[in-house]
Amino acid sequence: MSRYPYPDLQDLPEDLRARILEVQEKAGFIPNVFLALARRPAEWRAFFAYHDALMLKEDSGLSKGEREMIVTATSAANQCLYCVVAHGAILRVYEKKPLVADQVAVNHRKADIPARQRVMLDFALKVCQRSHEIDEEDFAQLHAHGFSDEDAWDIAAITAFFGLSNRMASFSGMMPNPEFYLLGRMPRDKK
Amino acid sequence: MSRYPYPDLQDLPEDLRARILEVQEKAGFIPNVFLALARRPAEWRAFFAYHDALMLKEDSGLSKGEREMIVTATSAANQCLYCVVAHGAILRVYEKKPLVADQVAVNHRKADIPARQRVMLDFALKVCQRSHEIDEEDFAQLHAHGFSDEDAWDIAAITAFFGLSNRMASFSGMMPNPEFYLLGRMPRDKK
Amino acid sequence: MSRYPYPDLQDLPEDLRARILEVQEKAGFIPNVFLALARRPAEWRAFFAYHDALMLKEDSGLSKGEREMIVTATSAANQCLYCVVAHGAILRVYEKKPLVADQVAVNHRKADIPARQRVMLDFALKVCQRSHEIDEEDFAQLHAHGFSDEDAWDIAAITAFFGLSNRMASFSGMMPNPEFYLLGRMPRDKK
Amino acid sequence: MSRYPYPDLQDLPEDLRARILEVQEKAGFIPNVFLALARRPAEWRAFFAYHDALMLKEDSGLSKGEREMIVTATSAANQCLYCVVAHGAILRVYEKKPLVADQVAVNHRKADIPARQRVMLDFALKVCQRSHEIDEEDFAQLHAHGFSDEDAWDIAAITAFFGLSNRMASFSGMMPNPEFYLLGRMPRDKK
Amino acid sequence: MSRYPYPDLQDLPEDLRARILEVQEKAGFIPNVFLALARRPAEWRAFFAYHDALMLKEDSGLSKGEREMIVTATSAANQCLYCVVAHGAILRVYEKKPLVADQVAVNHRKADIPARQRVMLDFALKVCQRSHEIDEEDFAQLHAHGFSDEDAWDIAAITAFFGLSNRMASFSGMMPNPEFYLLGRMPRDKK
Amino acid sequence: MSRYPYPDLQDLPEDLRARILEVQEKAGFIPNVFLALARRPAEWRAFFAYHDALMLKEDSGLSKGEREMIVTATSAANQCLYCVVAHGAILRVYEKKPLVADQVAVNHRKADIPARQRVMLDFALKVCQRSHEIDEEDFAQLHAHGFSDEDAWDIAAITAFFGLSNRMASFSGMMPNPEFYLLGRMPRDKK
Repeated sequence: MSRYPYPDLQDLPEDLRARILEVQEKAGFIPNVFLALARRPAEWRAFFAYHDALMLKEDSGLSKGEREMIVTATSAANQCLYCVVAHGAILRVYEKKPLVADQVAVNHRKADIPARQRVMLDFALKVCQRSHEIDEEDFAQLHAHGFSDEDAWDIAAITAFFGLSNRMASFSGMMPNPEFYLLGRMPRDKK
Repeated sequence: MSRYPYPDLQDLPEDLRARILEVQEKAGFIPNVFLALARRPAEWRAFFAYHDALMLKEDSGLSKGEREMIVTATSAANQCLYCVVAHGAILRVYEKKPLVADQVAVNHRKADIPARQRVMLDFALKVCQRSHEIDEEDFAQLHAHGFSDEDAWDIAAITAFFGLSNRMASFSGMMPNPEFYLLGRMPRDKK
Repeated sequence: MSRYPYPDLQDLPEDLRARILEVQEKAGFIPNVFLALARRPAEWRAFFAYHDALMLKEDSGLSKGEREMIVTATSAANQCLYCVVAHGAILRVYEKKPLVADQVAVNHRKADIPARQRVMLDFALKVCQRSHEIDEEDFAQLHAHGFSDEDAWDIAAITAFFGLSNRMASFSGMMPNPEFYLLGRMPRDKK
Repeated sequence: MSRYPYPDLQDLPEDLRARILEVQEKAGFIPNVFLALARRPAEWRAFFAYHDALMLKEDSGLSKGEREMIVTATSAANQCLYCVVAHGAILRVYEKKPLVADQVAVNHRKADIPARQRVMLDFALKVCQRSHEIDEEDFAQLHAHGFSDEDAWDIAAITAFFGLSNRMASFSGMMPNPEFYLLGRMPRDKK
Repeated sequence: MSRYPYPDLQDLPEDLRARILEVQEKAGFIPNVFLALARRPAEWRAFFAYHDALMLKEDSGLSKGEREMIVTATSAANQCLYCVVAHGAILRVYEKKPLVADQVAVNHRKADIPARQRVMLDFALKVCQRSHEIDEEDFAQLHAHGFSDEDAWDIAAITAFFGLSNRMASFSGMMPNPEFYLLGRMPRDKK
Repeated sequence: MSRYPYPDLQDLPEDLRARILEVQEKAGFIPNVFLALARRPAEWRAFFAYHDALMLKEDSGLSKGEREMIVTATSAANQCLYCVVAHGAILRVYEKKPLVADQVAVNHRKADIPARQRVMLDFALKVCQRSHEIDEEDFAQLHAHGFSDEDAWDIAAITAFFGLSNRMASFSGMMPNPEFYLLGRMPRDKK
């Protein structure tokens, strides 16, 4: 399906190959985004540096599960198949809630989540779809549910970064690995 | 989550109860739509009569799996959680393709389906979202992929009927049974 | 204009023919929807059973005129020629207000109707166009104007059912009978 | 309904009063637009000068009925109650087709009009809603149906002028005179 | 770029030529709108009479700069190149703020303007894009910031008139004179 | 205007400070984006690494001016004040065309650019607004105007990256430096 051929692992620069092998070791497979972007190493490095700065940092007011919830909901708004399926899987694993990814992808207003997360996703979807209309009332809503301005930045930055990712995946025909579809759906799933 | 309480099975008219028990016997649980609508028996009867006329009939140019694919894709366009999850499950079971439901729900253009089904979903989504713009070119597209005018009626009627269902489910807060989320996702799943 | 030929009355199952002749007796002509859908008797029966359950029942908090007002306003939002013209006519007859149908079809905010009906149509149009966004505030608005939860169900179900009807009429090229255009426009019109 | 009070006829400048009395003489009533705008004579004069230049000129490739058809269809797209009702009436009178105004107001694609007028309305609606996207293909469509570049200008200018009119009527709460609703609906109606 | 040739100055009726020469004298060049519309003198006269009634009158609650601000913001919403560039230039000159035109054209919510002007543009953009939804709350917003009902009329009429102008310019391919792009950008610019 | 305070230069990590001083040296001022994002060094580093990989690389089928044209047009579609003004300036400088930035920001269809660049912007705007609908026909359009698949990747990636930038700038209230507004507008401007 992908329009752009994936490079062979052995042809990649050492830093890319090392990271990819590490991911494969941990996940049991190589998520396609690592290969799809690897044909352009400079962009690949910037992409994953950005990803890690937002998604892996420890000192955030958002849990890792909440961050994946933002990715899943906004990627669904952008109709990005790769990100909905891949990050929906990670969301299920982190949150240990097998149903939540489908819920926030279809309609976050109906999802079985606390008010705090509902408001977090309202903000994320506005940044995703109408960022030029964000104003002080949106921040006030966040504050009323315990989010700080730094948390707001996290929500916005994650939304913005995966908006980039969504467009790259959709334009290039990146397909989610079959493994993602089932991941985290059984109660006994471990990360 | 549902705003409207479900009636007790024993308080229902006999015909409703019989059908519901039959479904429970077959599926192992009672899909919530059967209980959610049962508080109004006359509407319940019309709803399921319509459903059966479209979804269960044997002499259609569309397979039962294709009909569920239409439901899944158009319900996603309407952001109806109940129908995407419940009919996505039935779609997986009928088509024996564990990935297809998520694919057509997020973006049918990227789904791993033949051109015939892509065109079928294009038509369904236009009926769903811009039925007033349907014209002869839309029928010509269908004909070019082997669909008859009767098939076009089936696609349109299924889309229209589940547009009704989507609005009832969303407005009333109908939630999909947890069983649906996992159904048909393992290759070995049998109906 | 209709793509799909109408069946001959004498070829129809007895129950369809009987109802159609009864309508013709009462109205002086056969509204096209009765013939257009009759080519598929099972769907016809479900359609009119649903219609009757919603539009003819006596124990509703909505008058019959209000129900037709919902149909007219939401069908206009869906740009369905058949339903705007046919149900606009019935609305004029029921409400004995020759101007109201055109008003709610073009812009219900400018119609000469009480606040209660304005709020009723606000809710109907949201169910019609953004049912996934319906939330408790929408119900609170209805309650503030004297509508019960059962009335809300009526408004939503009528909107949902005629959303089905709109899509069937538009897709199949169903044209309103010429008689509808003038019906109820003269103050002396009787039903 | 109008937010802005209408001036008394006797308080108006002579040229306004003369024209208004002339219209009243001819139509049997004073269309509200003449009074609603008269509170600002300079704007009134420019408005009707523009109106007359477009709608009354004799040397146009568009019949007067076609011009009113453009007004009716584009005013419906702008949901302007006054213009849909008032110009729909004039359209019926000019074209001697009692059904055509409702048809083009609800969905011009389903109206019982020749292909030439369908294409004329396609162009008008694009100027109305997406004028920034008008390009050579739109002109080519018009040419293919016999319209000249001068006719294109007429279609665009009528659309643009009534877009102004629509906004003034909607913003100020201008209501159509009751007489317009029935005008031209009976085959025997004369202007 | 313009599809429609401009007439020669010497072929124009005396009143058009006189006004055009006067403008040229004052501005140093002939803004293209004067020539583009001159091929139809009756429309030209009505257009500039309307323009002058709104934009040149002295007894308005809006400064001339504020009126040009409305034109710039709503023309940007309509993606009209001619009006954004030409009226953005006049706005800079009147307001003596070299940055404000670009700001309101791209996103008036981020412009460096007082709350009063932000609310004025909110109203203008609603009249521009959703005039059928204008209601009492919109007027209340204006009143709360010191605008009268006459000011509201000014805002709406300017928006409506330039909506006409935008459509004429875009449809006909009217291009802004190069002089406009730079006008008023240097602090020392005088009118 | 910015909600988030800018850090002091002397408090920044050495690599950030060095780059910022270098930019200041070259441009004569520090573009606000360098300071606005610097409060989070890890994100800053990834952002500018991505930026440089796309915008500074030498072996692209797109000139640097064309790349800035993509940024300007898509940032206008996202109504991002900072990026329209800042990158519009750089576009004017690179292309030595003082008018082109305003043209592509308001309506690229009317801009004075060759067909090749018109098609490039059509593709960019589709990636920006409807990336889920990109299909083979879009690539065929590009190929027909001499763009390779690598060029398509460049267009998409620049659009995607600045979609991220647009959302960060709008959400955080980043304002363009006054210097950008005038840059490149005078024919004699040098970079």
